[in-house]
Amino acid sequence: MQVGRLNHVGVAVPDIEAAKQTYANLYGATEATETRDFPHLGVRVAFVKLANSEIELLEPLGATSPVHKFLERNPKGGQHHLCFEVPDIIAARDDMRAKGATVLGTGEPYVGAHGVPVIFIHPKDSCGLLIELMQEPAR
Amino acid sequence: MQVGRLNHVGVAVPDIEAAKQTYANLYGATEATETRDFPHLGVRVAFVKLANSEIELLEPLGATSPVHKFLERNPKGGQHHLCFEVPDIIAARDDMRAKGATVLGTGEPYVGAHGVPVIFIHPKDSCGLLIELMQEPAR
Repeated sequence: MQVGRLNHVGVAVPDIEAAKQTYANLYGATEATETRDFPHLGVRVAFVKLANSEIELLEPLGATSPVHKFLERNPKGGQHHLCFEVPDIIAARDDMRAKGATVLGTGEPYVGAHGVPVIFIHPKDSCGLLIELMQEPAR
Repeated sequence: MQVGRLNHVGVAVPDIEAAKQTYANLYGATEATETRDFPHLGVRVAFVKLANSEIELLEPLGATSPVHKFLERNPKGGQHHLCFEVPDIIAARDDMRAKGATVLGTGEPYVGAHGVPVIFIHPKDSCGLLIELMQEPAR
């Protein structure tokens, strides 16, 4: 299994609209998607587009949000995960398990904010980094 | 001022060779540079190449290393900074200051591991993220 593109860098923030303004005003990264709520995932999400990749802004929706604890530890926000594209998410999941890595949750890929199935690999397997693997979106 | 490509994601790790092995074995990211020591910057550095960007692996060199404290807080490693390319590093530095952002150190761009001048912007200005701005390398 070989990962492809770095689809995005996941960044947790306390206020997604303020973060969009920061990237636009300070760095001229003005191209961003609308903010969308994903109640079943516990997050609000927007993407800031860069020339070759994206920043995924994540704001917690509710106290059970997967980014709630992260923001308690990093109140101003911080880098949360990296997302690599893979050609086949099921093959990638099986490959991760065969290599002894821990796939989070049930291990069943689920549809994330990009509309394609994703899995997450435990940070202990990747030098402290939470890694998302995403089925390559159609382009 | 508008940033260009996401040149790399900076990741601090306790053991750079072990991290290279992890990215190669688990994710098939086998293309990495030789590890180089930068004693004047306090880091050892290697780059893992992805299809559209790079991961910069940083291991501290000495107790005064800029990543030493980061690894005390994150012993397994973790995401350390994002690096955006800019067309003119002096213009970018002046623009950051004009907008009230804090340029770290003296504010004079210095040559980083890529051989081009860089500056760093304080995390408080960018939703908790340490941002490196890098003069666009020749391609």
